[in-house]
Amino acid sequence: MTMDRDRILLTPGPLTTSLRTKLAMLKDWGSWDADFNAVTAQLRARLLDIVHGQGTHTVVPLQGSGTFSVEAAVATIVPPGDKGGHVLVLDNGAYCKRAAKLTQLMGRRATVLPFAEEGPVSPAALDQALRGDASISHVVLIHCETGTGVLNPLPEVAAVCQRHGKGLIVDAMSSFGALPIDAREIRFDALIAASGKCLEGVPGMGFVVLRQEALARSAGHSQSLAMDLHDQHQYMEKTGQWRFTPPTHVVVALAEAVQQFIDEGGQPARLARYQDNCRTLVEGMAGLGFRPFLKPEVQAPIIVTFHAPASPAYDFKRFYAAAKQRGFILYPGKLTEIETFRVGCIGAIGRNEMAQAVNAVADTLREMGIASGAPAL
Amino acid sequence: MTMDRDRILLTPGPLTTSLRTKLAMLKDWGSWDADFNAVTAQLRARLLDIVHGQGTHTVVPLQGSGTFSVEAAVATIVPPGDKGGHVLVLDNGAYCKRAAKLTQLMGRRATVLPFAEEGPVSPAALDQALRGDASISHVVLIHCETGTGVLNPLPEVAAVCQRHGKGLIVDAMSSFGALPIDAREIRFDALIAASGKCLEGVPGMGFVVLRQEALARSAGHSQSLAMDLHDQHQYMEKTGQWRFTPPTHVVVALAEAVQQFIDEGGQPARLARYQDNCRTLVEGMAGLGFRPFLKPEVQAPIIVTFHAPASPAYDFKRFYAAAKQRGFILYPGKLTEIETFRVGCIGAIGRNEMAQAVNAVADTLREMGIASGAPAL
Repeated sequence: MTMDRDRILLTPGPLTTSLRTKLAMLKDWGSWDADFNAVTAQLRARLLDIVHGQGTHTVVPLQGSGTFSVEAAVATIVPPGDKGGHVLVLDNGAYCKRAAKLTQLMGRRATVLPFAEEGPVSPAALDQALRGDASISHVVLIHCETGTGVLNPLPEVAAVCQRHGKGLIVDAMSSFGALPIDAREIRFDALIAASGKCLEGVPGMGFVVLRQEALARSAGHSQSLAMDLHDQHQYMEKTGQWRFTPPTHVVVALAEAVQQFIDEGGQPARLARYQDNCRTLVEGMAGLGFRPFLKPEVQAPIIVTFHAPASPAYDFKRFYAAAKQRGFILYPGKLTEIETFRVGCIGAIGRNEMAQAVNAVADTLREMGIASGAPAL
Repeated sequence: MTMDRDRILLTPGPLTTSLRTKLAMLKDWGSWDADFNAVTAQLRARLLDIVHGQGTHTVVPLQGSGTFSVEAAVATIVPPGDKGGHVLVLDNGAYCKRAAKLTQLMGRRATVLPFAEEGPVSPAALDQALRGDASISHVVLIHCETGTGVLNPLPEVAAVCQRHGKGLIVDAMSSFGALPIDAREIRFDALIAASGKCLEGVPGMGFVVLRQEALARSAGHSQSLAMDLHDQHQYMEKTGQWRFTPPTHVVVALAEAVQQFIDEGGQPARLARYQDNCRTLVEGMAGLGFRPFLKPEVQAPIIVTFHAPASPAYDFKRFYAAAKQRGFILYPGKLTEIETFRVGCIGAIGRNEMAQAVNAVADTLREMGIASGAPAL
């Protein structure tokens, strides 16, 4: 019999959070009250500290999923086309394509620079594209493309943008807090992340680190009331409150998660734990025959895409169900041409959980009559 | 010494929720997993049942605050101006003005029909406006204007819209679940509410009840990816999942709150409790000299606006702080011309809490040296 025990989420958010983080939600807060405003203010300051943005940048939180914050960042920072806005999206995966789509939908001019999914985007190709089209005003980069798990070269891309005087919008959804990002060295206009990723909060809000100079020029850009980060920022600075009802429980859970992040040792400690998780996973899975989709040098320690086993007995739904039965939630692949599945390395989990997950996958293979996880090629 | 005990929120959301609702958040859910999809599906069906919309309507949940869902409903249902979209907003308060603003910002044509704040909007005036301008395609009504607490005549407004063949968008944020709304008798295209109001969940998501015929005609209307309810609906019907990361803990808390709503006796029982709360509050406050801003016949039992006391010793910030010190969180007024404050009657609270609140206000007046809550006029 399977007992009612929480499963480990090996997914790129929502993820497994600590009990301490969840317990913070056992209280109701007035969203107008000074106590809650103090939580918001401290949280904003601490998020800013993580990227060393004090004095030059500001953090604006936003209700909704991370994608809402990406859309809001583009809507706020990029002027309409008739005022010179033209976005170049560096595309090496599903989340890049989503960023291009939301930019075009809102009526902003967008050009896509395509790259292969199995590698990072190329700063040299970006340099060439910017030389070739002077009308481009902003570049969108996904720091860690969760579709595959590939790490993109943020410092090099930022340097190219700065050299050309172009604004940079970074989707750091699945890297913020784990991978180093230093706003003193890396120039960006907006950098977006969310509560339910490497900071190990619960999902329900995003936030955008904005360069103050870029934010100051953005009044009136957004055609969406809800997604206007300039307006959200002005109201918050003036009143200490969110413009519209904040997800109070999600906010206090994130504040509690950030306290644990600090206690653990901040970004370097978080990265070290995730690297250990990733290594434990990849080595353990290799012992079962599984092969990662990405080469080790471009693999971020956030989420690993594995090739599906060649065995005809393999079926993702059955594989997923059998691993879930053993206490672990895996994640489907997001590649269209090749069959894969994904395993997250992030959340309030460590080496023990990763080793247990590998053992559960081994048991699952045995149950399914699959001799090896080795892929076809 | 003040002990660390949760204060009672007399605010129109976030509000005081039950411990059972909050305890539902002590678990992490995979947003791709069938168990979570089942929660979403049951929740959508139960929300639809509350307004008797089975077979004709559908519920589409959306991440973010209630305002996000209002914006999404307008963006999805109303076509752009060059395709005949023209919204008439019936305006008797702050939330009406916000609806007009977000409609204009997204580039939709919007006309405002103004009414006094102390009374409901007029179906006869609407009838006249629709006769006078055939280009109007949709009408926006706030069911209960939380700015004052006034109840607007939804059935009569809906009848006028139906007679003229106009679409109706209803912001039922602070009425859904408490005031009767029957989709079999009241024709609307979209009706919007949120998790953290009369259903007594925690804030972090909204939802829109959409008439299926109106939804089917809405493909391609939204210029926002995140706020496209047609897209959200299609994806959810196809996969059972939310398009973008859902606020999983908020969703399961709302599901748990709706279970308690059903156990309590559904909308009639919820209304009866809130009416009792409102009566206890208004009668108790009258005993202290306070006078409500609205006449009883237009007062919804959701939130009560009181005139500020005439006493020169009155100051809202001190009044608020002293009531908070005694365990109760009040709410500021939202009227520009007259000084008021507001007290909510909703949340997981009953007659006891309302009577205790009145006693706390009495103690507060004594502490502040205010002999009576009576207003100037």
